[in-house]
Amino acid sequence: MRHLMNPLDFSVEELDKLFDLAADIEKNPEKYAHKCEGKKLATCFYEPSTRTRLSFETAMLNLGGSVIGFSDAGSSSAAKGESVSDTIRVISCFADICAMRHPKEGAPMVAASRSSIPVINAGDGGHQHPTQTLTDLLTIRALKGRLDHFTIGLCGDLKFGRTVHSLVNALARYSDIHFVFISPEELRIPGYLRDTLWDRALSFEEVIRLEDVMPKLDLLYMTRVQRERFFNEEDYVRLKDFYILNRAKMERAREDMLVLHPLPRVNEISVEVDDDPRAVYFKQVQYGVYVRMALILTLLELV
Amino acid sequence: MRHLMNPLDFSVEELDKLFDLAADIEKNPEKYAHKCEGKKLATCFYEPSTRTRLSFETAMLNLGGSVIGFSDAGSSSAAKGESVSDTIRVISCFADICAMRHPKEGAPMVAASRSSIPVINAGDGGHQHPTQTLTDLLTIRALKGRLDHFTIGLCGDLKFGRTVHSLVNALARYSDIHFVFISPEELRIPGYLRDTLWDRALSFEEVIRLEDVMPKLDLLYMTRVQRERFFNEEDYVRLKDFYILNRAKMERAREDMLVLHPLPRVNEISVEVDDDPRAVYFKQVQYGVYVRMALILTLLELV
Amino acid sequence: MRHLMNPLDFSVEELDKLFDLAADIEKNPEKYAHKCEGKKLATCFYEPSTRTRLSFETAMLNLGGSVIGFSDAGSSSAAKGESVSDTIRVISCFADICAMRHPKEGAPMVAASRSSIPVINAGDGGHQHPTQTLTDLLTIRALKGRLDHFTIGLCGDLKFGRTVHSLVNALARYSDIHFVFISPEELRIPGYLRDTLWDRALSFEEVIRLEDVMPKLDLLYMTRVQRERFFNEEDYVRLKDFYILNRAKMERAREDMLVLHPLPRVNEISVEVDDDPRAVYFKQVQYGVYVRMALILTLLELV
Repeated sequence: MRHLMNPLDFSVEELDKLFDLAADIEKNPEKYAHKCEGKKLATCFYEPSTRTRLSFETAMLNLGGSVIGFSDAGSSSAAKGESVSDTIRVISCFADICAMRHPKEGAPMVAASRSSIPVINAGDGGHQHPTQTLTDLLTIRALKGRLDHFTIGLCGDLKFGRTVHSLVNALARYSDIHFVFISPEELRIPGYLRDTLWDRALSFEEVIRLEDVMPKLDLLYMTRVQRERFFNEEDYVRLKDFYILNRAKMERAREDMLVLHPLPRVNEISVEVDDDPRAVYFKQVQYGVYVRMALILTLLELV
Repeated sequence: MRHLMNPLDFSVEELDKLFDLAADIEKNPEKYAHKCEGKKLATCFYEPSTRTRLSFETAMLNLGGSVIGFSDAGSSSAAKGESVSDTIRVISCFADICAMRHPKEGAPMVAASRSSIPVINAGDGGHQHPTQTLTDLLTIRALKGRLDHFTIGLCGDLKFGRTVHSLVNALARYSDIHFVFISPEELRIPGYLRDTLWDRALSFEEVIRLEDVMPKLDLLYMTRVQRERFFNEEDYVRLKDFYILNRAKMERAREDMLVLHPLPRVNEISVEVDDDPRAVYFKQVQYGVYVRMALILTLLELV
Repeated sequence: MRHLMNPLDFSVEELDKLFDLAADIEKNPEKYAHKCEGKKLATCFYEPSTRTRLSFETAMLNLGGSVIGFSDAGSSSAAKGESVSDTIRVISCFADICAMRHPKEGAPMVAASRSSIPVINAGDGGHQHPTQTLTDLLTIRALKGRLDHFTIGLCGDLKFGRTVHSLVNALARYSDIHFVFISPEELRIPGYLRDTLWDRALSFEEVIRLEDVMPKLDLLYMTRVQRERFFNEEDYVRLKDFYILNRAKMERAREDMLVLHPLPRVNEISVEVDDDPRAVYFKQVQYGVYVRMALILTLLELV
């Protein structure tokens, strides 16, 4: 039995198979509409994350399965002092597969170690959120036709942004990717990630101004500047609007550049960009459903 | 693609078709038990409203579909600053139709403008709650056999009562309705509604004592006096028990008069009235399910 | 129409039939996978209890039915002042059967008296939690092959422990049960239960040290010492670790002794015991699903 804790748990070859499956699901949804009949997904969310939870639930329902679960810790046995290990053993009696979100790093890993059903890490603190990374990769592959040979800009909070770190690590396994990190000094990528990039001789640059690099990007990955990551309110206010993507900046970009964003977006992408065909962050949500469908089928060994 | 924002969005002819469908659903539920197989309803409730939410969910399940959603804003992405426009675009990737409840007037309208799936307004602040009005109309039509030629009393909080205003506006389109507004001075119908009635030459009267008008009513629509509508506690305490419907008052009513109430009821209808065959407020709940089934089928163009 | 309020609502003969059905469900789950198609369970939880709620939902989904409901009072109409009697009449329009959890003793009984669908008490305050008792009985019957002729130790908070009182009352109807009550002086079984045992000439003893009685037990029922049951924090801290079951104590037990626990467990059973084949508290969770499936089928008269 297999779990998904980290986006790197799957080899590049395994990811290829997963994305092929997701592509087939996109093309032939009715072929998969009954694959999980009689199966149950448990969504164990110890902190609220509606979009992620609903994406998992949609994926399972699209496969003909059903869903049980909880959407925050307050309504779970955790409030009575039950450990994650015990909870997953109980959930194993109820469901066939579990998606777990937890504010504490490593909690889904602890759960997986005691579980008798596959566990999917649906986000653990600032640590990992592998299905977001799979979503990002599938979106790029589906819309660009490849996962190699491109220049990708990553913009915003690169210091604390979990999705950025995961995506960089995942893309580092493909050929000829050039990373352009766009952030204020205070929110640059962490030292350990810079070291990794150096060690693996990967091509990257760090810049401050988004407009300067727009013309050379094949992909732009925007991120939210989360209030909760800042030590004080003043810093947050000063930096949050620093890198707003608007129509003017988009005019400097290539015709075939794509804008991705893990959502929710606050104001780092102006709504005037939404109707630009290069803005694919809502399509990304749809790919998130396909990749979760493929993942559920794979972990349940139904393919 | 069509949404439902306001009870007046449908013409009288369209309502007739909707109610005919609801009547057929009541008679032949099994005929509709699989109509929405593979379809998903999203219940996006930014404030709790269990009865309305469960009525929508029941309607979708009765049609063979399934349900995803959230039941309060705390567990939604709204807490992270996401706009309603963005949320509905995300939800459009998950579900086939959406019922949205929001404390802010106009929020479902904003959602509808960006949605690629039909949106049903499930209540927006003190503004509209169209499926309650459709429920009221269907109940009257089903139990009285008509939507015209009657005298209807509306009793309680007529100033802030959203359901009363909507029902009056909806009934104003039918022939020969006489409205009897029964309320304390402080909670009379608002000026704009009185103006509308005058402008359209509709027949109405305003009275203070419920018992006096009981004998002439064909229908009595009771409403709750909501604590949160009052400026001070003293006013609430003084007025809340003013218009309690009890067995004594029911004795003055016609044999075929019907008592409706949008529920939840606090104490404005004494429980001793519940077993009176003229008390149809729990039957109303059942009609609420039928009308929502008919509405879902209509908006999904499955009829 | 029948409800389940108290574990004693069913006669010993009726329980035998229920447990036979649960045993058949365990052996032939696919035979029951569509029995409740088109049926809906409402889980009305006025206080959170994730494990119990998910067990009911799993049971209904395993039978091919579907689920609606709420998981705490905050998101229910109760917050608007609706009575339990009104809520159940509304729920009766939505669902075919209801599982109700309520912090107030007797609330599910009030609901049942006004309901037009079967109501299952899923826990009412410190009063009853009949499906836990049915779970305990089924687990013993399934793993021991009988419900009579054994010595059972009940350990922990015997004063406030609702599950212990219910289980004792339920087992009192079978032959030749010897009860060993193991607790600190402050948490002994209540006087009324001691009186009942005397009146019915049942065999029991009360002891303080768990290790002393281990060798003679056929079954050991451990319970949690709930913080909320104590009048002051000091008492809680002093007593909570008094009766921790660990490997050393297990070594004194018989080869075929079984350890049960209603869960959630905090630290009254050391995790080192979990892998002991005599530790069956997670299997108990599975039996909880089977017995709830059997109960739903029985109350819906589908058997």
